[in-house]
Amino acid sequence: MTNTIDWADGPDGPAVVIVDQTLLPHSEELVRLGSVAELVAAIQRLAVRGAPALGVAGALGVALAARTSADPGADVAVLRAARPTAVNLARGVDRAAAKLAEGPDAVLAEALAVRDEDIACSTSMGRYGAELVTELLGPAPRLLTHCNAGALACVTGGTALGVVTTLHAAGRLGAVIASETRPLLQGARLTAWELQRAGVPFRLAVDGAGPFLMARGEVDAVILGADRICANGDVVNKVGSYAHALGAARAGIPFLVVAPESTVDMGTKSGADVEIEDRDGAEIVGSVAPAGTPTVNPAFDVTPHDLVTAIVTDRRVVRLDRGETLAGVALGEVRG
Amino acid sequence: MTNTIDWADGPDGPAVVIVDQTLLPHSEELVRLGSVAELVAAIQRLAVRGAPALGVAGALGVALAARTSADPGADVAVLRAARPTAVNLARGVDRAAAKLAEGPDAVLAEALAVRDEDIACSTSMGRYGAELVTELLGPAPRLLTHCNAGALACVTGGTALGVVTTLHAAGRLGAVIASETRPLLQGARLTAWELQRAGVPFRLAVDGAGPFLMARGEVDAVILGADRICANGDVVNKVGSYAHALGAARAGIPFLVVAPESTVDMGTKSGADVEIEDRDGAEIVGSVAPAGTPTVNPAFDVTPHDLVTAIVTDRRVVRLDRGETLAGVALGEVRG
Repeated sequence: MTNTIDWADGPDGPAVVIVDQTLLPHSEELVRLGSVAELVAAIQRLAVRGAPALGVAGALGVALAARTSADPGADVAVLRAARPTAVNLARGVDRAAAKLAEGPDAVLAEALAVRDEDIACSTSMGRYGAELVTELLGPAPRLLTHCNAGALACVTGGTALGVVTTLHAAGRLGAVIASETRPLLQGARLTAWELQRAGVPFRLAVDGAGPFLMARGEVDAVILGADRICANGDVVNKVGSYAHALGAARAGIPFLVVAPESTVDMGTKSGADVEIEDRDGAEIVGSVAPAGTPTVNPAFDVTPHDLVTAIVTDRRVVRLDRGETLAGVALGEVRG
Repeated sequence: MTNTIDWADGPDGPAVVIVDQTLLPHSEELVRLGSVAELVAAIQRLAVRGAPALGVAGALGVALAARTSADPGADVAVLRAARPTAVNLARGVDRAAAKLAEGPDAVLAEALAVRDEDIACSTSMGRYGAELVTELLGPAPRLLTHCNAGALACVTGGTALGVVTTLHAAGRLGAVIASETRPLLQGARLTAWELQRAGVPFRLAVDGAGPFLMARGEVDAVILGADRICANGDVVNKVGSYAHALGAARAGIPFLVVAPESTVDMGTKSGADVEIEDRDGAEIVGSVAPAGTPTVNPAFDVTPHDLVTAIVTDRRVVRLDRGETLAGVALGEVRG
């Protein structure tokens, strides 16, 4: 599979190239974004999405600004604010922007380092996560995942779905339930597409069914990604995650969060301090509800840390269920 | 508003007439069903739906069989099994079928009595429910409802939504959040349509957002209907209800179930004894997921009785949160 996001430097000038996720699963198209304005638009319409991929988009976007923009500083500010909830976007921007004084080549080198680290990150999360799942649940776990935390949320590989495919490759996976993830159906469109391509046995369910399927004994653990992990272990992720966490707690099964260290934000104390993006109601209303129907459309929700069994990153496993904390568990090695 | 379901006896012969709910909100059409086969097909494609309306459909269907069928016994059996989860359908069928030996007129009289009782039922539930909501939450409660428990689920009036409109008419309602209710979007299509027509201030949300909106303090109580209420107080209702109950419990707000006595099934001990209808995966996959995507599509779920604050019927309020039980609380009067 092609990288979800990458850099291209050819006769047409520099560009960020993405797989346009709004067209999946019916059409797999690469889109060339030759300006920061185009990249920002792509981020806002979710053509590129997922916290790790947004980090890379931020860094590559600064490299693009350094090459193409008359006012890189202004472009960088717009890019940094394109989506408020995921911390990775701002971090990717900041890392590359710190090199602006050294010139475009230094910025690009830093952005490519962000990209390469994301690839290494996915591999490492897959290893840490697969080991934990096997330890907790044995050789044939039935996992439920929400939204898309796969290769399409990163450069390649994935966070929670990277753990799933690592388990599958090792013959240590039972099956997967993917929740469709309204309103934009990342589960139905993207996760189903990735699981089908990977040959992973799975079933698609509506978001509201997850807790009941857990109660009925059809799920051994919930595993999903994160857009931001707060210092106290609160997890900000796609709306619907919290409901699944409540279901897992009631069913007495683990709730596992897989995300790179770049998603951990020790500067944000708790979920209450995170701005939750409220998106356009048209996403919900579509052509279905009566014209003029008002909406409330938070794109994310907050899962309080007491509902989280463990946080898996590229450098450690933090067992919140055993009283461990993000501040208390040292970083380990990135595993290749 | 026209009755959702009714009897018609004219020059074209006898028929059950329904508002076809698959066409709402964009088109309000009455459909004439002149045979039990047509009625069963309408029930199965959810053109008529909602536990109370299904009870009336069952009774009117037997009246239709008595007038039109060569083998009413066989038709009655097919009708009774058209949808397995709601107890009302079988009950409506059984009540009218008990009169078959007395001839078609006696059957029709019984079926029309079922219809009229449903209308009186809605009024009474509205009174009992509105009084309870005001007592628990004061004069401006913000309520979240799931699926459609309105006039469209009954002959007219409604169960949970009947309480909402009763409160609104009395100036004792804050606002409503309607969850869209995947996969068939009864909330987005039907509840939004009813609330808009009634002038009730409301917002539409995806199902996964409910628990988070409760955690964020935007909801004072959840209020919804039921397809079957078991002897121990377990509530079988549209899938997604259980997740909302978990959200309400965590937020410390009431979870209120409004349904007619005909939904209470003392012959079913608990939710574990109820057959949950698994519906066609095409409802979820639609045109969105990759071709060949497998699904799991339970149409209902079970909310355990310990998560239910109160059950409101046309003849009583059972406060489960105070240790009251269905067996222990006597029936009161139907309030007009």
